[in-house]
Amino acid sequence: MYKYEHGGDVYSLPLTTGGKAFIDFSANINPLGIPAGVKKALRSALKDCVNYPDPFCRELRGDLAAYLKVEEDNIFFGNGAADVLFRLALALKPRKALLLAPTFADYEKALRSVDCKINYYELQERQAFKIQRGIVRSITPNTDMVVICNPNNPTGQLTKRRLLLEILNKCVEVNAKLLVDECFMDFVDEDKAFSLRDLLQDYPNLIILKAFTKTFAIPGVRLGYCLNADEELMQRLHLCGQDWSVSVLAQAAGKAALLEKEYLKISFALIQEERKYLIKQLELLGAQVYGSEANYIFFRLDEPKELPLLLREQGYLIRSCANYHNLNESYYRIAVKTRVLNRGLIKAIKGIRKDALLTDDN
Amino acid sequence: MYKYEHGGDVYSLPLTTGGKAFIDFSANINPLGIPAGVKKALRSALKDCVNYPDPFCRELRGDLAAYLKVEEDNIFFGNGAADVLFRLALALKPRKALLLAPTFADYEKALRSVDCKINYYELQERQAFKIQRGIVRSITPNTDMVVICNPNNPTGQLTKRRLLLEILNKCVEVNAKLLVDECFMDFVDEDKAFSLRDLLQDYPNLIILKAFTKTFAIPGVRLGYCLNADEELMQRLHLCGQDWSVSVLAQAAGKAALLEKEYLKISFALIQEERKYLIKQLELLGAQVYGSEANYIFFRLDEPKELPLLLREQGYLIRSCANYHNLNESYYRIAVKTRVLNRGLIKAIKGIRKDALLTDDN
Repeated sequence: MYKYEHGGDVYSLPLTTGGKAFIDFSANINPLGIPAGVKKALRSALKDCVNYPDPFCRELRGDLAAYLKVEEDNIFFGNGAADVLFRLALALKPRKALLLAPTFADYEKALRSVDCKINYYELQERQAFKIQRGIVRSITPNTDMVVICNPNNPTGQLTKRRLLLEILNKCVEVNAKLLVDECFMDFVDEDKAFSLRDLLQDYPNLIILKAFTKTFAIPGVRLGYCLNADEELMQRLHLCGQDWSVSVLAQAAGKAALLEKEYLKISFALIQEERKYLIKQLELLGAQVYGSEANYIFFRLDEPKELPLLLREQGYLIRSCANYHNLNESYYRIAVKTRVLNRGLIKAIKGIRKDALLTDDN
Repeated sequence: MYKYEHGGDVYSLPLTTGGKAFIDFSANINPLGIPAGVKKALRSALKDCVNYPDPFCRELRGDLAAYLKVEEDNIFFGNGAADVLFRLALALKPRKALLLAPTFADYEKALRSVDCKINYYELQERQAFKIQRGIVRSITPNTDMVVICNPNNPTGQLTKRRLLLEILNKCVEVNAKLLVDECFMDFVDEDKAFSLRDLLQDYPNLIILKAFTKTFAIPGVRLGYCLNADEELMQRLHLCGQDWSVSVLAQAAGKAALLEKEYLKISFALIQEERKYLIKQLELLGAQVYGSEANYIFFRLDEPKELPLLLREQGYLIRSCANYHNLNESYYRIAVKTRVLNRGLIKAIKGIRKDALLTDDN
């Protein structure tokens, strides 16, 4: 039986034992919720759903190109970033790819769908799960593709431009594509020190993956894209999937989202503040926090075991990282939410730890 | 440069020369528009877009299984039928497929994305583009997949169950999958004489493709599915794409659509009536009408040339069939709409013909 391996599955457990909805820390969504302007745009686009969507997302493409200061032709939209990922795999059909371990599971899933062999660059806990320069040596003439998630999911650990450039140049040397997933970059302080967006024109082998999902809290709408300056690849992406993958609603939501500058500013400040709060509280609880430079916190807590199960009983969903390569059931990922919710979660963990200690004493 | 090859592209020509929106006969959408209940469901689902969609579409799946009287496990949903098509191609990776010519272009597009070789069964005008029993001989031990669109797009020509059963049994014999696209079956009189839905359990090699798009006039929302009783294939479909391809909005729209029995009844009667009207009027204009058993009319009209261009100047979009295999610029497809719109289109064609005759006389 196929098993869903991600966070955010609020449908398997629609209600807590108390009859309330779960508070979902397992999916990394902007805690401010859907911006009012985006909701309004969605409502007003409902009537347009009687038409097929624009297969080229022309209006949204123009707006996004101006917003990001990239060429219109360098943008390819999909039904969420995950859709773009599978399309990239199909368009490129790499035979051998290098992935981080741990990292977002769908790179491997997409690559395996086209029978690509996977090598792992294993991130080391003693190095706080940071990518080291040694990764460059793992890129060989047999490598067709390298995928770097920056900041990495689930660790929230950033890789600096300098190292990314070394990786990118090595990819040029061996004729490999470098896919950098910057889906969580919008929540990073000084993202300019990390994003490779300005290098697209110089490096046609560079593909950047991005989404509206997390930043604008619309995972249910589905809107993602990739940036790339290789014309041939951009054409092949059109051939490797349907013409109507981006719904009328998603295109309308995207256009409205790009106007939400105030929302972004507030979100960013909130995430910065609450990230600090959560990290401090988790460390006080004895957790080892790593990375966590985006809108989620990655930590290790060896005791009590089965934290997600115990938290679920109290109405909280968190992401166990046991099913990531190179991690185990001591690792967790939680989203950064608003103070009230964050405090509630911390309190619940505290309570569980107290209970566990009492039980140990008996 | 990648070229969009389908109808419904109202975005390339957003306004007529007179400043009004085009009347789009090029896409085969229910002329009654989005049912009120579906619009309401979409509106009320907007707030739920802050969550990822249910990767298994559990509620919708349960409702649809009951509606169609099929097993829940036999349904796989996608971001429109076209999305399901590409996923099927990726999951099955057939090496050789047999397609009708002409037929919907995306079967070939999807199959070519996995490097499948295509053979064509060429439909003959002298046989009114109907599939003949000889097709069975074209299915050989090298055939991995056969695709039959029923009713066929663009011809609107139906294939009877008896012949389909012969094809299906030959597919069993040579170990091939039979994909039957029944996306337009909802508009067919006596669909029970044509649909293979009741054979799913007996034929695990049978895959039926369906969509909500055309029937409920929601092409901008994206919701389609396939039916199949091969457990292994259903599992592979999950592996060959993202978990969140069906948006929160599409799932809500689908559930609401299944309650629209009155809307369906009225649509069906309208299409029946207007189909007759359009066929008669086109024949009076000297057109040769073939098939046309669904919510669109397929016809040949040799003069005047460039009808779509001339109609566009009058605010009407129709589908030239020149880019289908085995057809040329004398063939057209138009959607069946309401009487006022249908009459307007016929009047416009009449006017164009009169102008053409006058020009010929000079």
